[in-house]
Amino acid sequence: MLKQLQPKSQRIAILAEGSFGILESKTATVLVRYLPENVVAVIDSENAGRDTSEIIEIGEGIPIVRDLAEAMQFDPTLLAIGIAPPGGELPHAWRAILHEAIHNRLHVMSGLHQFLSEDPELAELAAAHDVLLWDARKPPANLPVATCKADAVDATVILTVGSDCRVGKMLSGIEVTRTARGRGLDAEFCPTGQNGIMVWGWGIAIDAVVSDFTAGAAEQIVLEGAQNHSLLIVEGQGSLVHPGYSGVTLSLLHGSLPDAMIFCHQPSRDTVARYTVPLPSVPEMIAQYEAMAAPIKPAKVIGLALNCFDLSDAEAHAAVHQAEAETGLPATDVVRFGADKLVDAVQAFQKKNRNANAVKLKEIQNL
Amino acid sequence: MLKQLQPKSQRIAILAEGSFGILESKTATVLVRYLPENVVAVIDSENAGRDTSEIIEIGEGIPIVRDLAEAMQFDPTLLAIGIAPPGGELPHAWRAILHEAIHNRLHVMSGLHQFLSEDPELAELAAAHDVLLWDARKPPANLPVATCKADAVDATVILTVGSDCRVGKMLSGIEVTRTARGRGLDAEFCPTGQNGIMVWGWGIAIDAVVSDFTAGAAEQIVLEGAQNHSLLIVEGQGSLVHPGYSGVTLSLLHGSLPDAMIFCHQPSRDTVARYTVPLPSVPEMIAQYEAMAAPIKPAKVIGLALNCFDLSDAEAHAAVHQAEAETGLPATDVVRFGADKLVDAVQAFQKKNRNANAVKLKEIQNL
Repeated sequence: MLKQLQPKSQRIAILAEGSFGILESKTATVLVRYLPENVVAVIDSENAGRDTSEIIEIGEGIPIVRDLAEAMQFDPTLLAIGIAPPGGELPHAWRAILHEAIHNRLHVMSGLHQFLSEDPELAELAAAHDVLLWDARKPPANLPVATCKADAVDATVILTVGSDCRVGKMLSGIEVTRTARGRGLDAEFCPTGQNGIMVWGWGIAIDAVVSDFTAGAAEQIVLEGAQNHSLLIVEGQGSLVHPGYSGVTLSLLHGSLPDAMIFCHQPSRDTVARYTVPLPSVPEMIAQYEAMAAPIKPAKVIGLALNCFDLSDAEAHAAVHQAEAETGLPATDVVRFGADKLVDAVQAFQKKNRNANAVKLKEIQNL
Repeated sequence: MLKQLQPKSQRIAILAEGSFGILESKTATVLVRYLPENVVAVIDSENAGRDTSEIIEIGEGIPIVRDLAEAMQFDPTLLAIGIAPPGGELPHAWRAILHEAIHNRLHVMSGLHQFLSEDPELAELAAAHDVLLWDARKPPANLPVATCKADAVDATVILTVGSDCRVGKMLSGIEVTRTARGRGLDAEFCPTGQNGIMVWGWGIAIDAVVSDFTAGAAEQIVLEGAQNHSLLIVEGQGSLVHPGYSGVTLSLLHGSLPDAMIFCHQPSRDTVARYTVPLPSVPEMIAQYEAMAAPIKPAKVIGLALNCFDLSDAEAHAAVHQAEAETGLPATDVVRFGADKLVDAVQAFQKKNRNANAVKLKEIQNL
């Protein structure tokens, strides 16, 4: 499932017109965070002239420009659509910008549900100008129904789960993977959404898969990751209490069949974003994930990743301590305090499992 | 979402070649059960010459024939594909039969995931012969993400849920609807799968919807049903403990937001069919549905529909009594003992709700 167009070999202009911000343009923020050397400009006329870091705290030195014409001075090779609106449709006003990009011979990368490559007009134009329309969300054909095969892989499988959308399931997964690699572990991040796919170069956007095959898509990701790695960090999606996306979340849980989970949460959030549904307490939500995993393959939450972007340092420390007291589990904010505590928890889990397996093996040998 | 081709105005030949049976050819069985006056023949060379009722206990007088050529003597107007294999693909050997049917100017009705109407060869042939290829599973375009709108409808919404696939969620839903109508209630069945859609003439096959919009599809069904009816019986799908389809089940629960649920189960089944996953106890499974409903809209299971097709009368009675003792809820086998107990439970639920609302209203008036 490796994608043909690898963003890390491109010079990227990000289109975030009218909606550039930490939460408003998640794709833009993720690209700036993980491909800072590739992003040459962000397009947003409302913030033109400012530096990217003034708006989203990262990306110092990346200019925000008025329009694509202005971005062209930085010689981009690819235009990335930097937003992911609910429903995933292309804002109508952006069509002219895509035309302009293609005429300028830029590839276009999109995470929208509406696939650019299936738009006859855009596809014809792209072919005529010899550029690619890369729909990161487009799933492969012929995905299977899940069959619990993920349970049989040799790798340790960790799934990031969470209280809601946009609380840090992708970011925590990437940070845990990087920190684990820093310790010499053979870790791989397994992207399940368009943004993770864009920065990591492989994966399946499971929310774009027909629902009968969504768990099967998650299973495929784990099987593929386990071919070459002994520790898989699978990117979570949605939440079990999200009215729109809970089915995606449960499909991912039952398709990837993790050995353990990391629970992600934004401490300042108390209702599901864009809904009036109140979030249960953190211990209740953790218990719910464990209860839903149990009938097929038991798995426990072994650590918490808190997204404290809107809190002061003191508040973030307090939130971490409160979460640890409430749950008895290690907690951190991976952006502010690093992912070491979570990798410690993963290694402790692996050691405990190895010991349990050694005891079992000894029992069998003594029979 | 009313479908253009209404099967109840057709003369139907059912293709079930090599796999005609109660569980093996669910679509065929459903068509025979609910459109007995429309089904003119069943095609299965292995059972040719026998009567349909010899194989599936219903459909007396409907002949089983060797092939389509033999079926043509009964003047069919429509060929229905009578199986729904996992994965939903058209068995390769059946393509020639579809060609023959179209050449004979029969419409073709299919519930497969692989849409016949999108097969260029079949589509061209059908157009040339002026017949329709009806894909009952094909969802409408532009479905929304769910937004809890189903919570606001005036109708009472009852969802059939269950322990596994093929335990009777559709059949119980239809039987409760018919029995309720027999009592003069303004009940409507809301199909969420291809078989229900074929016999009832409207609905959306939610398992064929891209997973981000699956709950939204369930919501649309409830909103449409509530426009003209005061009691909706929504067809359930899958099971919360099904490794492949649990996400579909949860999307349906959180999209339709039922007021109450009917739990469907086959007492003789103790693992998920085609998997080695053991089923939790019935009270545990009921508690799980109620726990998953609670954070968004609390709903209780108010009755059980047991599928005792493989049990003797005495065993079926025993299973019903055991389930009632275990759960404290009314139970029945709707095929063997009728759906009255469940409609009683629905009416009792409605009365209790009305009383609770009246008390609330009085409290407000007294303020």
